[in-house]
Amino acid sequence: MLTKETISEYFIALQNNICTAIEKADGKAKFVTDKWERKGGGGGTSRVIQDGNVIEKGGVNFSAVHGTLSETILSQILGTTNHKLPTTNFYATGVSIVIHPQSPMVPIIHMNVRYFEISENEFWFGGGIDLTPAYVVPDDAKYFHSSLKKVCDKFDANYYTEFKKWADDYFFIKHRNETRGVGGIFFDKLKPSAKHSKENLFEFVKAVGETFVPVYTEIISRNKNLAFTEKEKEWQLLRRGRYVEFNLVYDKGTKFGLETDGRTESILMSLPKNASWFYNFSPQKGSKEEQTLAFLKKEINWCA
Amino acid sequence: MLTKETISEYFIALQNNICTAIEKADGKAKFVTDKWERKGGGGGTSRVIQDGNVIEKGGVNFSAVHGTLSETILSQILGTTNHKLPTTNFYATGVSIVIHPQSPMVPIIHMNVRYFEISENEFWFGGGIDLTPAYVVPDDAKYFHSSLKKVCDKFDANYYTEFKKWADDYFFIKHRNETRGVGGIFFDKLKPSAKHSKENLFEFVKAVGETFVPVYTEIISRNKNLAFTEKEKEWQLLRRGRYVEFNLVYDKGTKFGLETDGRTESILMSLPKNASWFYNFSPQKGSKEEQTLAFLKKEINWCA
Repeated sequence: MLTKETISEYFIALQNNICTAIEKADGKAKFVTDKWERKGGGGGTSRVIQDGNVIEKGGVNFSAVHGTLSETILSQILGTTNHKLPTTNFYATGVSIVIHPQSPMVPIIHMNVRYFEISENEFWFGGGIDLTPAYVVPDDAKYFHSSLKKVCDKFDANYYTEFKKWADDYFFIKHRNETRGVGGIFFDKLKPSAKHSKENLFEFVKAVGETFVPVYTEIISRNKNLAFTEKEKEWQLLRRGRYVEFNLVYDKGTKFGLETDGRTESILMSLPKNASWFYNFSPQKGSKEEQTLAFLKKEINWCA
Repeated sequence: MLTKETISEYFIALQNNICTAIEKADGKAKFVTDKWERKGGGGGTSRVIQDGNVIEKGGVNFSAVHGTLSETILSQILGTTNHKLPTTNFYATGVSIVIHPQSPMVPIIHMNVRYFEISENEFWFGGGIDLTPAYVVPDDAKYFHSSLKKVCDKFDANYYTEFKKWADDYFFIKHRNETRGVGGIFFDKLKPSAKHSKENLFEFVKAVGETFVPVYTEIISRNKNLAFTEKEKEWQLLRRGRYVEFNLVYDKGTKFGLETDGRTESILMSLPKNASWFYNFSPQKGSKEEQTLAFLKKEINWCA
């Protein structure tokens, strides 16, 4: 039987493999490691890389926490107060990554894979991966989405369409009427069904996690040596400001973490080293910035 | 009778006076003005100053909006669904200010005065003013709080104690276990009582609004010519990161504005031009930064 311990152990190995590959891709900076414990039970390992050749600030978090959930939070998670669960014990484990590169030509990336268990019969997988370029390069967005589609298609012909739409809806900055970036995939509460066993769902989550390194290193190598101007750097800082807005206003993982007294520095490692807000910035007609804004919309079919 | 129109007209004059005084104190930058209309009714005037001698980015917003409230939002505001109000029309007017100075030696300041009306018999005043130094200077904090106490004491012997505590509780960054700065005063739902007529409450709100200029220009002139280092500038950027966290995670005005489709650029003009997040920053023992953190606590009696 596939146990929570097996899943956690896999996530630890995934964290290690990803950190090794990122260090190699960066060529200069090394991860620092902070182990932390959670008062209510469990803990995690935060690994942070800063001031590299390619990466300005990035974090790869592993955690496996457990304890009891308040009725309020349990009802929020389940979407009902009428759940009749015999217990409110929970176990949550996952890997969460955000990488902020130095260059405005290299996109920010986020990836998360997770497993949540309330009882032997009540558990699910979740995850997602999305790309946030300061300047949208259609070829890169196509490559990114096609790679994700390839992974999804191996497991279910509906996954990509469904999870791509979910990402469009989730990574959306409502008050800006903009998507965070070019999206990707997002999924939650994946439970066993006639089509997919627990083992099969885990294989899918593993495949998503293992897509991170080849896809992101390819995107890094395509863009890391491109020249950029001071103005392009400013635009990157403004886009990072939007990233901060999304994470602090909308991101459910961030909210859940802060509300349940998670380790603040690990939760907010997703924020960039620096970000800017210029009042009422409006890109020039026909500029690259304006072209990028036109791509920050839902329902763009990048695999067409 | 004191009408909402009279209150709004006063707020417009207050905005103008404050902008004139800030331009004078800055000596270089001028406010730009954006008038905006709200789809549901009313609108406002946002005035923003950038790249000055003293001020890096600051906004002084006036708005007077009206329309109908959804039952959900009305219940949130009133704290009950059992209100039996004959109507859900509302009128909200106020002035809201945030100033981010260039120098880490000059504190950020925020001030807000507002009036909310649902009917002739259901209305209230609110407001607040608080100071956020990158480096807490006890003498400045004392001067700031004593000035506020003086204003409060003219109207009610309990105001300062009550509203100072309210500010401590409101301007608190729970996930950092830090106050935003040295606090100030905060009050909401001030309604007429045996002690205070509507006119008297308005006089108090006016007095708070008119305290802004003398107090802040004094604090500016005390600190604007102080030298600072690159390291002190970095600390300022980190403290600005905390300001962003407070505004996006906790500030009720920001949340209400974003949720009710307010003008995003006017709401988020409160964010600094730039801010930083350094992973797991910890100040050196005995440093000025550590001393400041020791002051970012509730219940410090600055008027002692």
